[in-house]
Amino acid sequence: MKLLRVGTVGQERPAALDAHGRLVDLSGLVADIDGAFLGGDGIEVARAAVAGGGLPVLDPAVRVGAPVARPGKIVCVGLNYSDHAAETGAALPAEPILFMKAPNTVVGPNDRVLIPRGSVKTDWEVELAVVIGRTARYLPDEATARACVAGYTISNDLSEREFQLERGGQWDKGKSCETFNPLGPWLVTADDVADPQQLGLRLRVNGTLRQDGSTKNMIFGVAEIVRYVSQFMVLEPGDVINTGTPAGVALGMPEPKPYLRPGDVLELEIDGLGTQRQPVGSA
Amino acid sequence: MKLLRVGTVGQERPAALDAHGRLVDLSGLVADIDGAFLGGDGIEVARAAVAGGGLPVLDPAVRVGAPVARPGKIVCVGLNYSDHAAETGAALPAEPILFMKAPNTVVGPNDRVLIPRGSVKTDWEVELAVVIGRTARYLPDEATARACVAGYTISNDLSEREFQLERGGQWDKGKSCETFNPLGPWLVTADDVADPQQLGLRLRVNGTLRQDGSTKNMIFGVAEIVRYVSQFMVLEPGDVINTGTPAGVALGMPEPKPYLRPGDVLELEIDGLGTQRQPVGSA
Repeated sequence: MKLLRVGTVGQERPAALDAHGRLVDLSGLVADIDGAFLGGDGIEVARAAVAGGGLPVLDPAVRVGAPVARPGKIVCVGLNYSDHAAETGAALPAEPILFMKAPNTVVGPNDRVLIPRGSVKTDWEVELAVVIGRTARYLPDEATARACVAGYTISNDLSEREFQLERGGQWDKGKSCETFNPLGPWLVTADDVADPQQLGLRLRVNGTLRQDGSTKNMIFGVAEIVRYVSQFMVLEPGDVINTGTPAGVALGMPEPKPYLRPGDVLELEIDGLGTQRQPVGSA
Repeated sequence: MKLLRVGTVGQERPAALDAHGRLVDLSGLVADIDGAFLGGDGIEVARAAVAGGGLPVLDPAVRVGAPVARPGKIVCVGLNYSDHAAETGAALPAEPILFMKAPNTVVGPNDRVLIPRGSVKTDWEVELAVVIGRTARYLPDEATARACVAGYTISNDLSEREFQLERGGQWDKGKSCETFNPLGPWLVTADDVADPQQLGLRLRVNGTLRQDGSTKNMIFGVAEIVRYVSQFMVLEPGDVINTGTPAGVALGMPEPKPYLRPGDVLELEIDGLGTQRQPVGSA
Protein backbone atom coordinates (compact mmCIF):
# COMPACT_ATOMS: atom_id res chain seq x y z
CA MET A 1 0.00 0.00 0.00
CA LYS A 2 1.10 3.57 -0.68
CA LEU A 3 0.30 6.03 2.10
CA LEU A 4 0.83 9.74 1.82
CA ARG A 5 -0.02 13.08 3.39
CA VAL A 6 -1.44 15.85 1.22
CA GLY A 7 -2.45 19.47 1.64
CA THR A 8 -0.85 22.76 2.56
CA VAL A 9 2.20 22.85 4.80
CA GLY A 10 1.29 21.98 8.37
CA GLN A 11 -2.28 21.08 7.37
CA GLU A 12 -1.62 17.79 5.60
CA ARG A 13 -4.29 15.11 5.72
CA PRO A 14 -3.70 11.34 5.54
CA ALA A 15 -4.36 9.70 2.19
CA ALA A 16 -3.58 6.61 0.14
CA LEU A 17 -3.36 5.50 -3.46
CA ASP A 18 -6.06 2.93 -4.26
CA ALA A 19 -5.84 0.02 -6.69
CA HIS A 20 -6.70 2.34 -9.56
CA GLY A 21 -3.96 4.80 -8.60
CA ARG A 22 -6.49 7.33 -7.34
CA LEU A 23 -5.71 9.53 -4.37
CA VAL A 24 -8.22 8.75 -1.61
CA ASP A 25 -8.80 10.56 1.66
CA LEU A 26 -8.16 8.72 4.95
CA SER A 27 -8.89 11.70 7.20
CA GLY A 28 -12.33 10.37 8.12
CA LEU A 29 -10.68 7.24 9.53
CA VAL A 30 -7.35 8.22 11.05
CA ALA A 31 -5.94 11.44 12.48
CA ASP A 32 -2.60 11.38 10.70
CA ILE A 33 0.16 9.11 9.46
CA ASP A 34 2.47 9.29 12.42
CA GLY A 35 3.93 7.22 15.23
CA ALA A 36 0.50 6.50 16.75
CA PHE A 37 -0.87 5.37 13.37
CA LEU A 38 2.13 3.16 12.60
CA GLY A 39 2.52 1.74 16.11
CA GLY A 40 -1.19 0.95 16.35
CA ASP A 41 -3.38 -0.69 13.75
CA GLY A 42 -3.36 2.27 11.35
CA ILE A 43 -1.94 0.40 8.38
CA GLU A 44 -4.54 -2.38 8.70
CA VAL A 45 -7.40 0.10 9.14
CA ALA A 46 -6.26 2.02 6.07
CA ARG A 47 -5.75 -1.12 4.01
CA ALA A 48 -9.24 -2.41 4.77
CA ALA A 49 -10.83 0.96 3.99
CA VAL A 50 -8.97 1.35 0.70
CA ALA A 51 -9.88 -2.22 -0.33
CA GLY A 52 -13.50 -1.64 0.65
CA GLY A 53 -13.75 1.38 -1.64
CA GLY A 54 -16.00 4.38 -1.23
CA LEU A 55 -13.38 6.70 0.24
CA PRO A 56 -13.56 10.32 -0.97
CA VAL A 57 -11.31 10.88 -3.99
CA LEU A 58 -8.97 13.87 -3.72
CA ASP A 59 -7.67 16.23 -6.39
CA PRO A 60 -4.43 14.65 -7.64
CA ALA A 61 -2.93 18.13 -8.09
CA VAL A 62 -2.82 18.73 -4.33
CA ARG A 63 0.57 19.35 -2.71
CA VAL A 64 2.22 16.22 -1.30
CA GLY A 65 3.79 16.52 2.13
CA ALA A 66 6.20 14.16 3.86
CA PRO A 67 4.50 10.77 4.29
CA VAL A 68 5.13 10.67 8.04
CA ALA A 69 4.19 13.53 10.37
CA ARG A 70 7.26 14.85 12.09
CA PRO A 71 9.44 11.90 13.15
CA GLY A 72 10.60 11.59 16.75
CA LYS A 73 14.12 11.29 15.41
CA ILE A 74 16.04 10.83 12.19
CA VAL A 75 19.01 8.52 12.42
CA CYS A 76 21.42 8.49 9.49
CA VAL A 77 24.00 5.95 8.40
CA GLY A 78 27.19 7.40 6.95
CA LEU A 79 29.37 5.95 4.21
CA ASN A 80 27.13 2.91 3.73
CA TYR A 81 27.87 2.35 0.03
CA SER A 82 31.35 1.22 -0.92
CA ASP A 83 31.42 3.50 -3.98
CA HIS A 84 30.44 6.57 -1.89
CA ALA A 85 33.03 5.78 0.80
CA ALA A 86 35.65 5.57 -1.96
CA GLU A 87 34.69 8.88 -3.58
CA THR A 88 34.96 10.73 -0.27
CA GLY A 89 38.37 9.19 0.43
CA ALA A 90 37.08 7.41 3.55
CA ALA A 91 37.94 3.88 4.63
CA LEU A 92 35.11 1.31 4.57
CA PRO A 93 33.46 1.37 7.98
CA ALA A 94 33.83 -1.75 10.12
CA GLU A 95 30.41 -1.09 11.66
CA PRO A 96 27.70 1.44 10.78
CA ILE A 97 28.57 5.10 11.27
CA LEU A 98 25.58 6.83 12.86
CA PHE A 99 24.68 10.47 13.06
CA MET A 100 21.45 12.43 13.49
CA LYS A 101 19.43 14.99 11.67
CA ALA A 102 16.98 17.39 13.35
CA PRO A 103 13.39 16.18 12.77
CA ASN A 104 12.26 19.67 11.73
CA THR A 105 14.38 19.39 8.57
CA VAL A 106 11.61 17.27 7.02
CA VAL A 107 9.72 18.83 4.10
CA GLY A 108 7.59 17.41 1.30
CA PRO A 109 9.16 15.61 -1.67
CA ASN A 110 8.58 18.50 -4.07
CA ASP A 111 9.08 21.43 -1.71
CA ARG A 112 11.77 24.03 -2.17
CA VAL A 113 15.18 23.24 -0.70
CA LEU A 114 17.02 26.23 0.77
CA ILE A 115 20.76 26.75 0.56
CA PRO A 116 21.77 27.96 4.03
CA ARG A 117 23.12 31.46 4.48
CA GLY A 118 26.87 31.48 4.08
CA SER A 119 26.89 28.09 2.39
CA VAL A 120 29.04 27.34 -0.63
CA LYS A 121 29.01 23.53 -0.34
CA THR A 122 25.40 22.36 -0.24
CA ASP A 123 25.27 18.80 -1.56
CA TRP A 124 22.64 16.16 -2.36
CA GLU A 125 22.27 12.52 -1.23
CA VAL A 126 19.51 10.23 -2.49
CA GLU A 127 18.77 7.59 0.14
CA LEU A 128 16.40 4.78 0.96
CA ALA A 129 14.56 5.86 4.11
CA VAL A 130 13.23 3.24 6.52
CA VAL A 131 10.17 4.18 8.57
CA ILE A 132 9.86 2.37 11.90
CA GLY A 133 6.54 0.74 12.83
CA ARG A 134 7.31 -0.96 16.14
CA THR A 135 9.45 -0.05 19.12
CA ALA A 136 12.93 -1.45 18.55
CA ARG A 137 15.13 -2.01 21.58
CA TYR A 138 18.08 -4.42 21.70
CA LEU A 139 16.75 -6.50 18.82
CA PRO A 140 18.41 -9.93 18.80
CA ASP A 141 18.58 -10.54 15.05
CA GLU A 142 17.70 -9.37 11.56
CA ALA A 143 14.32 -11.15 11.55
CA THR A 144 13.04 -9.19 14.54
CA ALA A 145 14.52 -6.04 12.99
CA ARG A 146 12.64 -6.65 9.75
CA ALA A 147 9.39 -6.90 11.72
CA CYS A 148 9.97 -3.36 13.07
CA VAL A 149 9.99 -1.79 9.60
CA ALA A 150 6.65 -0.19 8.64
CA GLY A 151 7.81 0.73 5.16
CA TYR A 152 10.07 2.71 2.90
CA THR A 153 10.27 6.07 1.24
CA ILE A 154 12.76 8.33 -0.54
CA SER A 155 14.95 10.72 1.44
CA ASN A 156 17.21 13.49 0.23
CA ASP A 157 19.82 13.74 2.99
CA LEU A 158 21.02 17.23 2.08
CA SER A 159 24.40 18.10 3.51
CA GLU A 160 26.45 21.26 3.82
CA ARG A 161 29.99 19.90 3.48
CA GLU A 162 31.83 22.86 4.98
CA PHE A 163 29.51 22.87 8.00
CA GLN A 164 29.76 19.07 8.21
CA LEU A 165 33.50 18.61 7.80
CA GLU A 166 35.35 21.89 8.34
CA ARG A 167 33.55 23.58 11.24
CA GLY A 168 34.41 21.64 14.35
CA GLY A 169 34.34 17.90 14.12
CA GLN A 170 30.83 16.42 14.27
CA TRP A 171 28.80 15.91 11.10
CA ASP A 172 25.42 16.97 12.57
CA LYS A 173 26.24 20.66 12.06
CA GLY A 174 25.99 20.25 8.30
CA LYS A 175 22.99 17.95 8.29
CA SER A 176 20.22 19.79 10.15
CA CYS A 177 19.73 22.99 8.14
CA GLU A 178 16.21 24.12 7.33
CA THR A 179 14.54 22.03 4.53
CA PHE A 180 17.44 19.55 4.52
CA ASN A 181 15.30 16.40 4.51
CA PRO A 182 12.73 16.13 1.71
CA LEU A 183 10.81 12.90 2.34
CA GLY A 184 8.26 11.05 0.21
CA PRO A 185 6.15 11.01 -1.84
CA TRP A 186 4.77 7.75 -0.43
CA LEU A 187 5.29 5.53 2.54
CA VAL A 188 5.27 2.18 0.73
CA THR A 189 4.42 -0.47 3.28
CA ALA A 190 7.05 -3.17 3.78
CA ASP A 191 4.85 -5.92 2.31
CA ASP A 192 4.90 -4.05 -1.01
CA VAL A 193 8.69 -3.94 -1.25
CA ALA A 194 9.79 -7.39 -2.36
CA ASP A 195 13.47 -6.86 -1.55
CA PRO A 196 14.77 -3.58 -0.11
CA GLN A 197 18.29 -4.62 -1.16
CA GLN A 198 17.42 -4.68 -4.87
CA LEU A 199 16.27 -1.14 -5.51
CA GLY A 200 17.83 1.21 -8.03
CA LEU A 201 18.15 4.79 -6.81
CA ARG A 202 18.96 7.81 -8.93
CA LEU A 203 19.42 11.55 -8.55
CA ARG A 204 19.60 14.19 -11.26
CA VAL A 205 20.65 17.84 -10.99
CA ASN A 206 19.23 20.01 -13.77
CA GLY A 207 18.57 16.84 -15.76
CA THR A 208 22.13 15.47 -15.44
CA LEU A 209 22.29 12.03 -13.84
CA ARG A 210 24.59 12.39 -10.81
CA GLN A 211 23.79 9.32 -8.70
CA ASP A 212 22.83 5.96 -10.18
CA GLY A 213 23.18 3.24 -7.58
CA SER A 214 21.48 0.20 -6.14
CA THR A 215 20.69 -0.72 -2.57
CA LYS A 216 22.39 -4.04 -3.28
CA ASN A 217 25.65 -2.14 -2.79
CA MET A 218 24.91 -1.16 0.78
CA ILE A 219 27.68 -2.24 3.14
CA PHE A 220 25.11 -2.82 5.89
CA GLY A 221 21.61 -3.80 4.75
CA VAL A 222 18.34 -2.49 6.14
CA ALA A 223 17.70 -5.28 8.63
CA GLU A 224 21.24 -5.16 9.98
CA ILE A 225 21.03 -1.37 10.32
CA VAL A 226 17.79 -1.54 12.32
CA ARG A 227 19.19 -4.30 14.54
CA TYR A 228 22.42 -2.38 15.03
CA VAL A 229 20.82 0.99 15.82
CA SER A 230 18.55 -0.68 18.39
CA GLN A 231 21.64 -1.63 20.42
CA PHE A 232 22.42 2.06 20.95
CA MET A 233 19.04 3.76 21.20
CA VAL A 234 15.34 2.96 21.32
CA LEU A 235 13.65 3.34 17.93
CA GLU A 236 9.97 4.21 18.03
CA PRO A 237 7.11 4.12 15.54
CA GLY A 238 7.43 7.05 13.16
CA ASP A 239 11.21 7.33 13.51
CA VAL A 240 13.13 7.48 10.23
CA ILE A 241 16.48 5.96 9.29
CA ASN A 242 18.31 7.34 6.27
CA THR A 243 20.36 4.36 5.15
CA GLY A 244 23.18 6.08 3.29
CA THR A 245 23.86 7.29 -0.23
CA PRO A 246 25.60 5.78 -3.26
CA ALA A 247 28.39 7.49 -5.19
CA GLY A 248 27.82 10.65 -7.18
CA VAL A 249 27.61 13.48 -4.67
CA ALA A 250 29.28 16.82 -5.40
CA LEU A 251 31.81 16.24 -2.59
CA GLY A 252 33.23 13.28 -4.51
CA MET A 253 33.75 15.11 -7.81
CA PRO A 254 36.83 16.88 -9.16
CA GLU A 255 37.21 20.62 -8.61
CA PRO A 256 35.34 22.77 -9.22
CA LYS A 257 32.76 20.60 -7.42
CA PRO A 258 29.24 21.30 -8.65
CA TYR A 259 27.64 22.21 -5.32
CA LEU A 260 24.05 23.39 -5.47
CA ARG A 261 23.09 26.93 -6.47
CA PRO A 262 19.78 28.76 -6.35
CA GLY A 263 17.77 27.87 -9.43
CA ASP A 264 19.01 24.28 -9.61
CA VAL A 265 16.45 21.49 -9.72
CA LEU A 266 16.90 18.13 -7.98
CA GLU A 267 15.07 15.02 -9.16
CA LEU A 268 15.25 11.79 -7.16
CA GLU A 269 13.78 8.35 -7.71
CA ILE A 270 13.93 4.91 -6.17
CA ASP A 271 12.42 1.87 -7.92
CA GLY A 272 8.83 1.43 -6.75
CA LEU A 273 8.95 4.37 -4.32
CA GLY A 274 8.10 7.21 -6.70
CA THR A 275 9.91 10.43 -7.51
CA GLN A 276 10.84 13.75 -5.90
CA ARG A 277 11.52 17.11 -7.54
CA GLN A 278 12.94 20.02 -5.55
CA PRO A 279 13.71 23.49 -6.81
CA VAL A 280 16.66 25.03 -4.98
CA GLY A 281 16.37 28.46 -3.38
CA SER A 282 18.19 30.52 -0.74
CA ALA A 283 17.52 30.76 2.98
CA MET B 1 8.78 31.07 38.11
CA LYS B 2 9.46 27.37 38.51
CA LEU B 3 7.44 25.16 36.19
CA LEU B 4 7.41 21.40 36.38
CA ARG B 5 5.58 18.30 35.25
CA VAL B 6 4.49 15.74 37.83
CA GLY B 7 2.82 12.35 37.85
CA THR B 8 3.48 8.86 36.56
CA VAL B 9 5.63 8.33 33.47
CA GLY B 10 3.81 9.45 30.35
CA GLN B 11 0.91 10.88 32.41
CA GLU B 12 2.63 13.97 33.78
CA ARG B 13 0.54 17.06 34.42
CA PRO B 14 1.75 20.67 34.32
CA ALA B 15 2.45 22.30 37.67
CA ALA B 16 4.32 25.17 39.29
CA LEU B 17 5.84 26.14 42.61
CA ASP B 18 3.99 29.08 44.14
CA ALA B 19 5.43 31.87 46.30
CA HIS B 20 5.15 29.62 49.36
CA GLY B 21 7.00 26.78 47.65
CA ARG B 22 3.83 24.76 47.33
CA LEU B 23 3.27 22.52 44.31
CA VAL B 24 0.18 23.78 42.47
CA ASP B 25 -1.68 22.18 39.59
CA LEU B 26 -1.82 23.96 36.22
CA SER B 27 -3.68 21.20 34.39
CA GLY B 28 -6.96 23.11 34.56
CA LEU B 29 -5.36 25.96 32.62
CA VAL B 30 -2.89 24.49 30.16
CA ALA B 31 -2.54 21.12 28.45
CA ASP B 32 1.15 20.58 29.08
CA ILE B 33 4.50 22.33 29.34
CA ASP B 34 5.70 21.86 25.79
CA GLY B 35 6.52 23.74 22.62
CA ALA B 36 2.96 25.05 22.24
CA PHE B 37 2.92 26.30 25.84
CA LEU B 38 6.32 27.97 25.58
CA GLY B 39 5.82 29.38 22.08
CA GLY B 40 2.41 30.80 22.99
CA ASP B 41 1.43 32.69 26.11
CA GLY B 42 1.72 29.71 28.45
CA ILE B 43 4.28 31.24 30.79
CA GLU B 44 2.21 34.43 31.23
CA VAL B 45 -1.01 32.45 31.77
CA ALA B 46 0.70 30.29 34.39
CA ARG B 47 2.35 33.26 36.09
CA ALA B 48 -0.96 35.10 36.43
CA ALA B 49 -2.75 32.03 37.75
CA VAL B 50 -0.04 31.27 40.30
CA ALA B 51 0.01 34.89 41.46
CA GLY B 52 -3.77 34.94 41.69
CA GLY B 53 -3.78 31.96 44.03
CA GLY B 54 -6.50 29.37 44.42
CA LEU B 55 -4.89 26.69 42.27
CA PRO B 56 -5.25 23.12 43.57
CA VAL B 57 -2.29 22.12 45.75
CA LEU B 58 -0.68 18.79 44.84
CA ASP B 59 0.98 16.18 47.02
CA PRO B 60 4.66 17.18 47.16
CA ALA B 61 5.64 13.49 47.20
CA VAL B 62 4.47 12.98 43.62
CA ARG B 63 7.03 11.85 41.02
CA VAL B 64 8.64 14.70 39.08
CA GLY B 65 8.99 14.23 35.34
CA ALA B 66 11.07 16.22 32.88
CA PRO B 67 9.90 19.86 32.92
CA VAL B 68 9.34 19.94 29.14
CA ALA B 69 7.25 17.35 27.32
CA ARG B 70 9.38 15.60 24.77
CA PRO B 71 11.57 18.17 22.98
CA GLY B 72 11.57 18.37 19.19
CA LYS B 73 15.32 18.06 19.36
CA ILE B 74 18.20 18.11 21.80
CA VAL B 75 21.29 19.91 20.58
CA CYS B 76 24.47 19.48 22.61
CA VAL B 77 27.63 21.54 22.77
CA GLY B 78 30.83 19.54 23.17
CA LEU B 79 33.97 20.55 25.05
CA ASN B 80 32.52 23.89 26.12
CA TYR B 81 34.47 24.24 29.38
CA SER B 82 38.21 24.74 29.16
CA ASP B 83 38.86 22.42 32.10
CA HIS B 84 36.80 19.61 30.51
CA ALA B 85 38.51 20.04 27.13
CA ALA B 86 41.83 19.74 28.90
CA GLU B 87 40.91 16.60 30.84
CA THR B 88 39.83 14.81 27.65
CA GLY B 89 43.03 15.80 25.89
CA ALA B 90 41.16 17.84 23.28
CA ALA B 91 42.17 21.21 21.89
CA LEU B 92 40.00 24.21 22.77
CA PRO B 93 37.36 24.50 20.06
CA ALA B 94 37.53 27.58 17.81
CA GLU B 95 33.75 27.53 17.46
CA PRO B 96 31.08 25.45 19.22
CA ILE B 97 31.14 21.70 18.57
CA LEU B 98 27.57 20.53 18.05
CA PHE B 99 26.08 17.07 18.24
CA MET B 100 22.61 15.69 18.89
CA LYS B 101 20.87 13.44 21.31
CA ALA B 102 17.66 11.52 20.57
CA PRO B 103 14.68 13.28 22.21
CA ASN B 104 13.38 10.01 23.64
CA THR B 105 16.39 9.85 25.98
CA VAL B 106 14.64 12.35 28.26
CA VAL B 107 13.54 11.06 31.68
CA GLY B 108 12.65 12.72 34.96
CA PRO B 109 15.35 14.16 37.23
CA ASN B 110 15.08 11.34 39.77
CA ASP B 111 14.33 8.44 37.45
CA ARG B 112 16.57 5.43 37.11
CA VAL B 113 19.43 5.67 34.62
CA LEU B 114 20.19 2.47 32.74
CA ILE B 115 23.68 1.34 31.78
CA PRO B 116 23.34 0.07 28.19
CA ARG B 117 23.89 -3.58 27.43
CA GLY B 118 27.52 -4.22 26.63
CA SER B 119 28.62 -0.91 28.14
CA VAL B 120 31.71 -0.62 30.31
CA LYS B 121 32.21 3.16 29.93
CA THR B 122 28.99 4.90 30.95
CA ASP B 123 29.85 8.39 32.15
CA TRP B 124 28.08 11.41 33.66
CA GLU B 125 27.96 15.09 32.62
CA VAL B 126 26.16 17.77 34.62
CA GLU B 127 25.07 20.57 32.27
CA LEU B 128 23.06 23.75 32.17
CA ALA B 129 20.17 23.06 29.80
CA VAL B 130 18.60 25.91 27.86
CA VAL B 131 14.94 25.54 26.90
CA ILE B 132 13.90 27.45 23.78
CA GLY B 133 10.77 29.63 23.91
CA ARG B 134 10.71 31.27 20.47
CA THR B 135 11.63 30.10 16.99
CA ALA B 136 15.30 30.90 16.42
CA ARG B 137 16.49 31.18 12.81
CA TYR B 138 19.61 33.08 11.71
CA LEU B 139 19.61 35.27 14.81
CA PRO B 140 21.72 38.39 14.23
CA ASP B 141 23.15 38.86 17.71
CA GLU B 142 23.23 37.75 21.33
CA ALA B 143 20.36 40.06 22.36
CA THR B 144 17.91 38.41 19.97
CA ALA B 145 19.27 35.03 21.05
CA ARG B 146 18.63 35.85 24.71
CA ALA B 147 15.01 36.66 23.85
CA CYS B 148 14.55 33.12 22.47
CA VAL B 149 15.41 31.48 25.82
CA ALA B 150 12.34 30.42 27.81
CA GLY B 151 14.36 29.24 30.77
CA TYR B 152 16.86 26.86 32.27
CA THR B 153 17.02 23.46 33.88
CA ILE B 154 19.54 20.78 34.83
CA SER B 155 20.57 18.13 32.34
CA ASN B 156 22.63 15.00 32.84
CA ASP B 157 24.16 14.38 29.41
CA LEU B 158 25.00 10.73 29.99
CA SER B 159 27.58 9.36 27.59
CA GLU B 160 28.88 5.92 26.74
CA ARG B 161 32.50 6.67 25.92
CA GLU B 162 33.28 3.50 23.99
CA PHE B 163 30.17 3.94 21.85
CA GLN B 164 30.95 7.66 21.47
CA LEU B 165 34.66 7.48 20.67
CA GLU B 166 35.67 3.96 19.67
CA ARG B 167 32.82 2.66 17.54
CA GLY B 168 32.97 4.54 14.27
CA GLY B 169 33.59 8.23 14.43
CA GLN B 170 30.48 10.26 15.32
CA TRP B 171 29.65 11.01 18.96
CA ASP B 172 25.87 10.55 18.65
CA LYS B 173 26.19 6.75 18.96
CA GLY B 174 27.21 7.09 22.60
CA LYS B 175 24.77 9.86 23.49
CA SER B 176 21.30 8.54 22.66
CA CYS B 177 20.96 5.41 24.79
CA GLU B 178 17.74 4.85 26.71
CA THR B 179 17.39 7.11 29.84
CA PHE B 180 20.51 9.09 28.86
CA ASN B 181 19.03 12.55 29.46
CA PRO B 182 17.55 13.17 32.93
CA LEU B 183 16.08 16.67 32.85
CA GLY B 184 14.67 18.84 35.62
CA PRO B 185 13.34 19.20 38.22
CA TRP B 186 12.13 22.66 37.23
CA LEU B 187 12.05 24.84 34.20
CA VAL B 188 13.15 28.10 35.83
CA THR B 189 11.98 30.93 33.61
CA ALA B 190 14.71 33.17 32.22
CA ASP B 191 13.57 36.20 34.24
CA ASP B 192 14.34 34.27 37.42
CA VAL B 193 17.95 33.53 36.47
CA ALA B 194 19.89 36.73 37.07
CA ASP B 195 22.99 35.63 35.17
CA PRO B 196 23.22 32.22 33.48
CA GLN B 197 27.01 32.64 33.35
CA GLN B 198 27.36 32.75 37.15
CA LEU B 199 25.91 29.40 38.20
CA GLY B 200 27.79 26.79 40.17
CA LEU B 201 27.13 23.24 39.01
CA ARG B 202 28.06 20.08 40.85
CA LEU B 203 27.77 16.32 40.45
CA ARG B 204 28.36 13.60 43.02
CA VAL B 205 28.66 9.85 42.53
CA ASN B 206 27.85 7.86 45.66
CA GLY B 207 28.38 11.03 47.68
CA THR B 208 31.82 11.82 46.21
CA LEU B 209 32.03 15.22 44.55
CA ARG B 210 33.19 14.59 40.97
CA GLN B 211 32.25 17.80 39.15
CA ASP B 212 32.38 21.23 40.76
CA GLY B 213 32.32 23.93 38.11
CA SER B 214 30.77 27.24 37.20
CA THR B 215 29.06 28.36 34.03
CA LYS B 216 31.41 31.34 34.08
CA ASN B 217 34.00 28.95 32.63
CA MET B 218 32.03 28.19 29.50
CA ILE B 219 34.06 28.88 26.38
CA PHE B 220 30.87 29.94 24.56
CA GLY B 221 28.13 31.45 26.71
CA VAL B 222 24.42 30.72 26.47
CA ALA B 223 23.49 33.65 24.23
CA GLU B 224 26.36 32.99 21.83
CA ILE B 225 25.44 29.29 21.68
CA VAL B 226 21.81 30.03 20.79
CA ARG B 227 22.88 32.59 18.18
CA TYR B 228 25.43 30.17 16.74
CA VAL B 229 23.14 27.14 16.58
CA SER B 230 20.49 29.23 14.82
CA GLN B 231 22.88 29.71 11.89
CA PHE B 232 22.86 25.96 11.23
CA MET B 233 19.34 24.84 12.09
CA VAL B 234 15.98 26.23 13.14
CA LEU B 235 15.39 26.04 16.89
CA GLU B 236 11.77 25.78 17.97
CA PRO B 237 9.90 26.29 21.23
CA GLY B 238 10.47 23.27 23.48
CA ASP B 239 13.84 22.40 21.97
CA VAL B 240 16.64 21.85 24.47
CA ILE B 241 20.32 22.77 24.27
CA ASN B 242 22.76 21.03 26.60
CA THR B 243 25.51 23.61 26.94
CA GLY B 244 28.46 21.41 27.87
CA THR B 245 29.99 20.01 31.03
CA PRO B 246 32.81 21.15 33.31
CA ALA B 247 35.76 18.95 34.31
CA GLY B 248 35.33 15.87 36.46
CA VAL B 249 33.89 13.18 34.22
CA ALA B 250 35.14 9.59 34.47
CA LEU B 251 36.72 9.83 31.00
CA GLY B 252 39.12 12.47 32.30
CA MET B 253 40.34 10.50 35.32
CA PRO B 254 43.37 8.22 35.67
CA GLU B 255 42.94 4.49 35.11
CA PRO B 256 41.04 2.65 36.33
CA LYS B 257 38.42 5.25 35.40
CA PRO B 258 35.39 5.09 37.69
CA TYR B 259 32.70 4.55 35.06
CA LEU B 260 29.21 3.96 36.37
CA ARG B 261 28.05 0.60 37.71
CA PRO B 262 24.62 -0.67 38.68
CA GLY B 263 23.84 0.46 42.22
CA ASP B 264 25.65 3.79 41.91
CA VAL B 265 23.74 6.96 42.74
CA LEU B 266 24.16 10.24 40.85
CA GLU B 267 23.33 13.60 42.47
CA LEU B 268 23.39 16.78 40.44
CA GLU B 269 22.75 20.41 41.31
CA ILE B 270 22.96 23.83 39.73
CA ASP B 271 22.58 27.02 41.78
CA GLY B 272 18.93 28.06 41.78
CA LEU B 273 17.82 25.22 39.52
CA GLY B 274 17.30 22.49 42.12
CA THR B 275 18.72 18.99 42.40
CA GLN B 276 18.55 15.61 40.68
CA ARG B 277 19.16 12.15 42.11
CA GLN B 278 19.38 9.10 39.84
CA PRO B 279 19.94 5.51 40.89
CA VAL B 280 21.87 3.55 38.27
CA GLY B 281 20.54 0.25 36.93
CA SER B 282 21.08 -1.98 33.92
CA ALA B 283 19.23 -2.02 30.59
